[in-house]
Amino acid sequence: MTDPTAPRRRGRPARKEAAEGPGARERILEAARTEFAERGYDKTTVRGIARAADVDAALVHHYFGTKDEVFAAAIEVSFEPSLVVPVILGQGTDGIGERLARFFIGVWENPATRGPLLAIIRSALTHDAAATVLRGFLLRRLLEKIAGELDVPDPKFRAELAASHMIGIAILRYVIKVEPLASADPETIVEMVAPTLQRYLTEA
Amino acid sequence: MTDPTAPRRRGRPARKEAAEGPGARERILEAARTEFAERGYDKTTVRGIARAADVDAALVHHYFGTKDEVFAAAIEVSFEPSLVVPVILGQGTDGIGERLARFFIGVWENPATRGPLLAIIRSALTHDAAATVLRGFLLRRLLEKIAGELDVPDPKFRAELAASHMIGIAILRYVIKVEPLASADPETIVEMVAPTLQRYLTEA
Repeated sequence: MTDPTAPRRRGRPARKEAAEGPGARERILEAARTEFAERGYDKTTVRGIARAADVDAALVHHYFGTKDEVFAAAIEVSFEPSLVVPVILGQGTDGIGERLARFFIGVWENPATRGPLLAIIRSALTHDAAATVLRGFLLRRLLEKIAGELDVPDPKFRAELAASHMIGIAILRYVIKVEPLASADPETIVEMVAPTLQRYLTEA
Repeated sequence: MTDPTAPRRRGRPARKEAAEGPGARERILEAARTEFAERGYDKTTVRGIARAADVDAALVHHYFGTKDEVFAAAIEVSFEPSLVVPVILGQGTDGIGERLARFFIGVWENPATRGPLLAIIRSALTHDAAATVLRGFLLRRLLEKIAGELDVPDPKFRAELAASHMIGIAILRYVIKVEPLASADPETIVEMVAPTLQRYLTEA
């Protein structure tokens, strides 16, 4: 089943896994999230991630490839599109604005997910390579999936407007920390923002 | 009128001005915008700004104070609140959403103002000191003035929600460059976003 001559694979390398112990892949992702969050994109290295995960750098390359590809995998774990998309779209577009706002604020209110998300946004704002990775991820994995379920003209444009609002709220609330937004009750934000997202995503 | 013993003033130092030539203050601000935009907050120094403006570093300190204070002055020039506030509020709150959206997109579409604004946002996202300066500026100079004219509950919170949307659009359109938002006609964006801003700023 496996081809040991392949230069780089993303699968489950049975022998390597045995050598590095189970959960090495998860440890690498966890270490990558922490490294990118704490050091920033520039100063994070595959070698440093490997050290933090207690594996060989070759294993990081083996599972994920380049630093950019590790970054992409770390983004994916942070957003968990397999989790996000069903929550937002599972019940159709009725009430989608409220579900989207509540889900998004919930992810940011959780300290475990806030750090990696901030790292991703900071990296994308300061490094073109990180912006390219985030753009590809946002488009292919998240916005296109949501847009595919919408029955409005320009669904991708609409999904991007909704995303832009939530990214802007995250920046003003959690990074710049303007008051009263920074201390506002999450439900107050959801209540105000939900009709906006609903309009973008469902009203032609 | 002037007090030569004052450690730092913001006024017009007649003798210094004569020595450095007219327009030194404006040259310093111009140089500061360029330095912050090109080097980022971290690597910009008062000495570097002085060199770019062809003045002595003491004159930069004399006019503006610390690096943070030069940054604050550069923000002020970029946003030009004395220009922004009348445009947005001059005609009351009827159509304020559309005016705000059009003004904001116009500032970002203009390459002369886009660079400094990007530098400000990048700096604020990566340096706490810059975030503090931007927060103070946004609140005191811009959002509080707009909020003061609004006849809704929680006017500052409403103004911040409107600001968050526009900051998020700028990030997705001009930094991350997601399509189709990045290539969308500015008027299409204004048309979609204006009702959102109008609701936040005027509908109780």
